[in-house]
Amino acid sequence: MPVKLLFIGDIIGKPGREALSRELHRIVDRHYVDLVIANGENAAGGFGLTAETAQDLFKCGVQMLTSGNHIWDKKEALEYVKREARLVRPANYPEGTPGKGSAIVSTPGGVKVGILNLEGRVFMNNLDDPFRCADKEIEKLKEETPIIFVDFHAEATSEKMAMGWYLDGRVSAVVGTHTHVQTADERILNQGTAYITDAGMTGAFDSIIGMKKEEAMERFITQRPSKFEVAKKDIRINAVVIGVDETTGRAVTIERINLACG
Amino acid sequence: MPVKLLFIGDIIGKPGREALSRELHRIVDRHYVDLVIANGENAAGGFGLTAETAQDLFKCGVQMLTSGNHIWDKKEALEYVKREARLVRPANYPEGTPGKGSAIVSTPGGVKVGILNLEGRVFMNNLDDPFRCADKEIEKLKEETPIIFVDFHAEATSEKMAMGWYLDGRVSAVVGTHTHVQTADERILNQGTAYITDAGMTGAFDSIIGMKKEEAMERFITQRPSKFEVAKKDIRINAVVIGVDETTGRAVTIERINLACG
Amino acid sequence: MPVKLLFIGDIIGKPGREALSRELHRIVDRHYVDLVIANGENAAGGFGLTAETAQDLFKCGVQMLTSGNHIWDKKEALEYVKREARLVRPANYPEGTPGKGSAIVSTPGGVKVGILNLEGRVFMNNLDDPFRCADKEIEKLKEETPIIFVDFHAEATSEKMAMGWYLDGRVSAVVGTHTHVQTADERILNQGTAYITDAGMTGAFDSIIGMKKEEAMERFITQRPSKFEVAKKDIRINAVVIGVDETTGRAVTIERINLACG
Amino acid sequence: MPVKLLFIGDIIGKPGREALSRELHRIVDRHYVDLVIANGENAAGGFGLTAETAQDLFKCGVQMLTSGNHIWDKKEALEYVKREARLVRPANYPEGTPGKGSAIVSTPGGVKVGILNLEGRVFMNNLDDPFRCADKEIEKLKEETPIIFVDFHAEATSEKMAMGWYLDGRVSAVVGTHTHVQTADERILNQGTAYITDAGMTGAFDSIIGMKKEEAMERFITQRPSKFEVAKKDIRINAVVIGVDETTGRAVTIERINLACG
Ligand SMILES: [Fe+2]
Ligand SMILES: [Fe+2]
Ligand SMILES: [Fe+2]
Ligand SMILES: [Fe+2]
Ligand SMILES: [Fe+2]
Ligand SMILES: [Fe+2]
Ligand SMILES: [Fe+2]
Ligand SMILES: [Fe+2]
Repeated sequence: MPVKLLFIGDIIGKPGREALSRELHRIVDRHYVDLVIANGENAAGGFGLTAETAQDLFKCGVQMLTSGNHIWDKKEALEYVKREARLVRPANYPEGTPGKGSAIVSTPGGVKVGILNLEGRVFMNNLDDPFRCADKEIEKLKEETPIIFVDFHAEATSEKMAMGWYLDGRVSAVVGTHTHVQTADERILNQGTAYITDAGMTGAFDSIIGMKKEEAMERFITQRPSKFEVAKKDIRINAVVIGVDETTGRAVTIERINLACG
Repeated sequence: MPVKLLFIGDIIGKPGREALSRELHRIVDRHYVDLVIANGENAAGGFGLTAETAQDLFKCGVQMLTSGNHIWDKKEALEYVKREARLVRPANYPEGTPGKGSAIVSTPGGVKVGILNLEGRVFMNNLDDPFRCADKEIEKLKEETPIIFVDFHAEATSEKMAMGWYLDGRVSAVVGTHTHVQTADERILNQGTAYITDAGMTGAFDSIIGMKKEEAMERFITQRPSKFEVAKKDIRINAVVIGVDETTGRAVTIERINLACG
Repeated sequence: MPVKLLFIGDIIGKPGREALSRELHRIVDRHYVDLVIANGENAAGGFGLTAETAQDLFKCGVQMLTSGNHIWDKKEALEYVKREARLVRPANYPEGTPGKGSAIVSTPGGVKVGILNLEGRVFMNNLDDPFRCADKEIEKLKEETPIIFVDFHAEATSEKMAMGWYLDGRVSAVVGTHTHVQTADERILNQGTAYITDAGMTGAFDSIIGMKKEEAMERFITQRPSKFEVAKKDIRINAVVIGVDETTGRAVTIERINLACG
Repeated sequence: MPVKLLFIGDIIGKPGREALSRELHRIVDRHYVDLVIANGENAAGGFGLTAETAQDLFKCGVQMLTSGNHIWDKKEALEYVKREARLVRPANYPEGTPGKGSAIVSTPGGVKVGILNLEGRVFMNNLDDPFRCADKEIEKLKEETPIIFVDFHAEATSEKMAMGWYLDGRVSAVVGTHTHVQTADERILNQGTAYITDAGMTGAFDSIIGMKKEEAMERFITQRPSKFEVAKKDIRINAVVIGVDETTGRAVTIERINLACG
């Protein structure tokens, strides 16, 4: 049976964390999940991550956290990212950035999985080249394991698909995050890499990408800065389950999850 | 039975047009479609629309074309958009822009449907406010019919969801286009508007958003300008079918289509 | 003798305000200034404007404040902008925006001057079209006076020059702001409009556009969010003096000021 | 006497080239110029550079060409940039980019000058970090000479000033290009580096940054793509002359040139 990786899309504040605390074990059971990875960049009040909110997620069963552009929003993350083995930030932040961009984690069954986090540049920060950065990181991870999971945190669909094809056959999965909207294009690419443009988000869906819809709408209408607050209604979990052949590291299945949980 | 609107996501060049010529009638039959709308901004060689390519699409059974930022890529579109009743361009282009941003079309059964095309501003052109523009256009269309379909051609998920909520209860459907990747978030919003962030694209999927993947990838790797060419392999049709109550204009169903056709 | 308008570039926090309190009367005397206009969008701690900081500036001899994208940074500005006759915000913010985009002010000698504030869209907010907005505002102002001063708060040199040429012969001056760097391209355009791409800033020049240079540099180096603080050393006043023919509203002179004041 | 470097801002098409052919020798004479450097990214029809247009410039007396984002506009530049010793492209293009980002050139008097070209990232391409790239290139150049001239081709004033301060004391001059508007902020920074945010352009000033003003204006008014053509009236040469101490590499003078030549 393939190794089953569950990846949970950007967790938005308390509603997202609570949904996982109630439902994650069920998803894990139903899909025979071996390893739970989640994007935590919005877990603390919608912006950033703290040691405490990360702890919440580890308690639910998350084994590894990825992140993205919002990881620096809470000041304490600068320190936390250094000491927390179970947290990666995009690898293509410049040299000297606290924390690490990739990690090896083991499933309870002892299978090693490489986790690589990257951030896109189109319409985003001016980071190092995520493509060349991926080359280097993958070479390193390959020394440990053929199973590599990539969270590519990016805005533009073209950049995300380019990364999928660029890494096709070299990693087990390229899963996009950041837009907070799950895409319906999950597939196994030609050389065996599982791909989806965006895994979506875990939080309130009576919202604009997780935030209260009235406030987010106001920003478009007024073009003035406005406060954003985490929304609370219509909670859903967005995720993907990827089955990977343990020996080759090739993906054999990719399945979307969109679970309404109240 | 509700009025059934079929909307086809951005058609990418000849592979997209040919797929429709082979398969559209089947989709129409299977889903009891009353009206076929399609986004044609990439129908001519991947960039823009010509009278000839539009003709191809009308012959397949498309009754109304919407468009987006690429509509001006072929010079002749400037004239064509003026004389073609079955073509709209985003309504929020500035005053004096050739063509029209909305239209009324009738189903074979005689039901009038308002079509409104809008373009987003986040990461895109500096256009007039699509929200206030929608207010005006909808008021006009409502005098003719309660059934209104909106193609919101935009990049950012937040702007698209904001438009969905902004128009919720006032139009039958807000369907996003432009990213060329179908999203999995189709739903009926609280007040009865069908919504999906992106309908996806119709063309070659062994590609980067419809274009040959080697060339598109090269642009990211080299950061130099490069030619794009329409891809040809793994053709699929991405679309949505929306069921609308004829009397109230409220959506009752929204269903995604992702049809592999060779 | 022509009417002499003094326009002071973006005032950056306390160092900028204090420089004006010490030196403004001298500049006014030396250049026979009839009216002092200043951009106040950064007057309060580098971000935004408050009633108190505006008061400081009026006391120095400023008669009219223009602004830009930062005008909304301090919450109280939302109310202040409504009640302060001597303050304009960019006219092309959407309908319903508090405050006004243009005003008429009189010199001590009784000459009426129209003041128009506009904001660019390239690399900035998604506002209404500043070109068409200018058409409407100018028509209104022309009923009162032929002398019209425009502060075009914009990033891209191309958009700023386009506005200059667009309004050439219809207003007395188009002066750019926002980049905080004075340009050396002051001139009278073909039809009599004084033009400069950017008036520069008034504040500390041992800085990165007015902010402490270490912190601003860090943002580029780390690509993480960082606090900005107003710099304090090497204070200079950047401004332009424009001579306008009272009868025709045509500019006859434009002169840059770059005054080191400690 | 200090070594005198003349740097000519972006040359726009034939009008720019012809102006140099008529006037460059006079500028060289008057300012006792030892080395002529020029930005050639727009020398061929306003977009890019060809071997032929470069030849024109070398004939006028230009000894070294820098460039920027437009260097790739003409196909032949991909080859030309490899074989032309007197041409650099921004050093922070990714590994594998044809051509080189820095060079050493000698004045007729035998003084070696290091030339470094960099491109900004704010509102521009997604390139490698120009700050860290500068560190590496400067280390290399310093082995040959203490005199280093940097053309930082960038849009945002903040990024340009950040580079100025970042390199202060390590290079002789940081001169900005790309906006095509000369700034009035030339100065010697605290540690001896000459700095100006933008050197301006050499071409037609009855224009929008060198292009015919009606067409450029139309793009802002219509928000549709439009052709740009090189403007021809009111030709000026924008440049800076920098005096550098030969032993220390520190700048001692920086002077702007804005020469109207018909
Ligand atoms: Fe996120
Ligand atoms: Fe993000
Ligand atoms: Fe498209
Ligand atoms: Fe598009
Ligand atoms: Fe400012
Ligand atoms: Fe500003
Ligand atoms: Fe240029
Ligand atoms: Fe450039």
